[in-house]
Amino acid sequence: MKKIAILGSTGSIGTQTLDVVRANGDIEVLGISAGRNVKMLEEQAREFHPQLIAVWDENAAKDLAYRLADMDVKIVSGMEGLLELARMPQTDILVTAVVGMIGIRPTMEGIKAGKDIALANKETLVTAGHLIIPMAKEHGVQILPVDSEHSAIFQALHGEKRAQVEKLLITASGGPFRGRKREELEHVTLADTLKHPNWVMGQKITVDSATLVNKGLEVMEARWLFDVDLDHIQVVVQPKSIIHSMVEFKDGAVMAQLGTPDMRLPIQYALYYPERRYLDGERLDFHKLKEITFEDPDMDTFLGLPMAMDAARKGGSMPTVFNAANELAVKKFLQEKIGFLDIYDIIAQSMERHTVIRNPDLEEILAVEDETYKWIESRW
Amino acid sequence: MKKIAILGSTGSIGTQTLDVVRANGDIEVLGISAGRNVKMLEEQAREFHPQLIAVWDENAAKDLAYRLADMDVKIVSGMEGLLELARMPQTDILVTAVVGMIGIRPTMEGIKAGKDIALANKETLVTAGHLIIPMAKEHGVQILPVDSEHSAIFQALHGEKRAQVEKLLITASGGPFRGRKREELEHVTLADTLKHPNWVMGQKITVDSATLVNKGLEVMEARWLFDVDLDHIQVVVQPKSIIHSMVEFKDGAVMAQLGTPDMRLPIQYALYYPERRYLDGERLDFHKLKEITFEDPDMDTFLGLPMAMDAARKGGSMPTVFNAANELAVKKFLQEKIGFLDIYDIIAQSMERHTVIRNPDLEEILAVEDETYKWIESRW
Repeated sequence: MKKIAILGSTGSIGTQTLDVVRANGDIEVLGISAGRNVKMLEEQAREFHPQLIAVWDENAAKDLAYRLADMDVKIVSGMEGLLELARMPQTDILVTAVVGMIGIRPTMEGIKAGKDIALANKETLVTAGHLIIPMAKEHGVQILPVDSEHSAIFQALHGEKRAQVEKLLITASGGPFRGRKREELEHVTLADTLKHPNWVMGQKITVDSATLVNKGLEVMEARWLFDVDLDHIQVVVQPKSIIHSMVEFKDGAVMAQLGTPDMRLPIQYALYYPERRYLDGERLDFHKLKEITFEDPDMDTFLGLPMAMDAARKGGSMPTVFNAANELAVKKFLQEKIGFLDIYDIIAQSMERHTVIRNPDLEEILAVEDETYKWIESRW
Repeated sequence: MKKIAILGSTGSIGTQTLDVVRANGDIEVLGISAGRNVKMLEEQAREFHPQLIAVWDENAAKDLAYRLADMDVKIVSGMEGLLELARMPQTDILVTAVVGMIGIRPTMEGIKAGKDIALANKETLVTAGHLIIPMAKEHGVQILPVDSEHSAIFQALHGEKRAQVEKLLITASGGPFRGRKREELEHVTLADTLKHPNWVMGQKITVDSATLVNKGLEVMEARWLFDVDLDHIQVVVQPKSIIHSMVEFKDGAVMAQLGTPDMRLPIQYALYYPERRYLDGERLDFHKLKEITFEDPDMDTFLGLPMAMDAARKGGSMPTVFNAANELAVKKFLQEKIGFLDIYDIIAQSMERHTVIRNPDLEEILAVEDETYKWIESRW
């Protein structure tokens, strides 16, 4: 039996991880966690019988303890609670499915405790890749990507030598506004933005898909995950999300992973890597699939991608500013306090004023995040 | 240094194999062979300094001996010569790039002598897969596919477990007559037939691409090479030959190999497997590639594929009849003695009259071939 703990078990990736666990029947869920969704945590606890539940919100933790008074389960709260979950002695894999920079500390804690990391939290590598990757090497743990694009690359690389990689080709749907120009984006609504053409995902990541910030974050992550420099990463818009990403090798062969949009595939691949298991789900049907089309990303309109590349090239603390500014801007957009294009302005101005700290440690990263938030809050 | 011998060094695959050898510089060519092209054999001998040259035609062998009197090289002829080449003591890999059933005996000889086989000869597995595959297992040799489709599948399978394969998806260009109906094929000329849309290949294989016999042979080969039954092999028409073939796994992931049409890639992959090497050549350019389109093959018009599936299901000696009938029919078509659709008629009638021999040995296979030729010669 594999033993796992899930950081963020009530979100989109978390619940689909539990779907995979349910379907396979040979994974034990020793720990689950969430921000404050006690109703779902209670249901999950009654189905999966974890030993430990971490609830970010202290009052929610108390509520959950009351609800689960009949069960033998330890309930913890706050960052200390997440860290306790991350280092649970008996787990093999820590699934970090929590959204946002809150995921970094627990991920590091899991690595230090020797857990393989099934990584769905983008912020960890984007802001702290220079700390995480050496730490993972030092502790001999694997970073198993859960994102569909990185999983596709991970699958294409399986059995291959990294030295033979020429280029990563990360595919992008282009989001719901593909084809529109900047002036057409001025008055798009939140509802328009949340209509992703192919994937059903959390709200934050859906907005990030529309701005192409998501693709920018993926490029930054890919660079750390696969040790490839930015000049050897190309984003290819492929609107139907059939090809989940590709790797070009030195001999010119391009290996691609194709599939239907089903996040359970990369989740299951990460949990059982390097094994594949049967997965119940829709299959690509080449009798019906008529075409796969390709475009270059519109870098003049969807500034999320070029700004991310710029942040990555500047390096150091700049990706943290990019990410934090986006995180808060999207929050404000989801609250309908700002417009779509304001997201770009907030990121651009936050990066503009920031002086890069080279090789920042975790305290510095978190301080830069905090400082970026405060500056944005003072202005928008 | 890897050491190889090439059966059929003057043909399309043979010369491209020598291109790969030339570019890499760490493969020694110990043996070469051809039917009767002494001029090219002489050039190859002076460049690669083989120890042994096998020439099928005895007079051509004498001519070559005269031309190469100044060199220290042994020249042999006939089937005995090919067999001597196949079992050369110092070679690691036998490249079987000869076209036609003439390749079977030398391939078996190479396997018995413990050589890995870089297999470009389709007939070997199509007619004698039931003998070859167990023989390769017994002698612990690898069958390394050189065909672009089988190489793509081989690449997609690398590092994966065969038990996790759900389906092979073999792509087909559809040939120069894709989209036409049977009545439109009645008067197509040899010149029309030889215009393959994507690949520059030998004449016989180009005709086989137009009839879809080639795809049928590939399905039969794939069945033996990858131990997958016919119901789990699907042919997908993909006119631009960008995707060279795909594998669907049990989890729904489809792994594909894409690339430009360059046979040196599968040749080099076979010679260095499981290593990849740099290959100088054109790359797929996703800035320019607009789309990849898919169609089902037209099984009512291009009878090469359904007749091959039928032959494969009947099994035993029937694939030999299918292949021999096609081989002779294509020869007559290349000599402009018969029309395009006559190829199908010759195959169909040859299969119709044949009573299947179960599990034929090599003598029986060759007798069926011979008998098929004779019957066709008596009627067309």
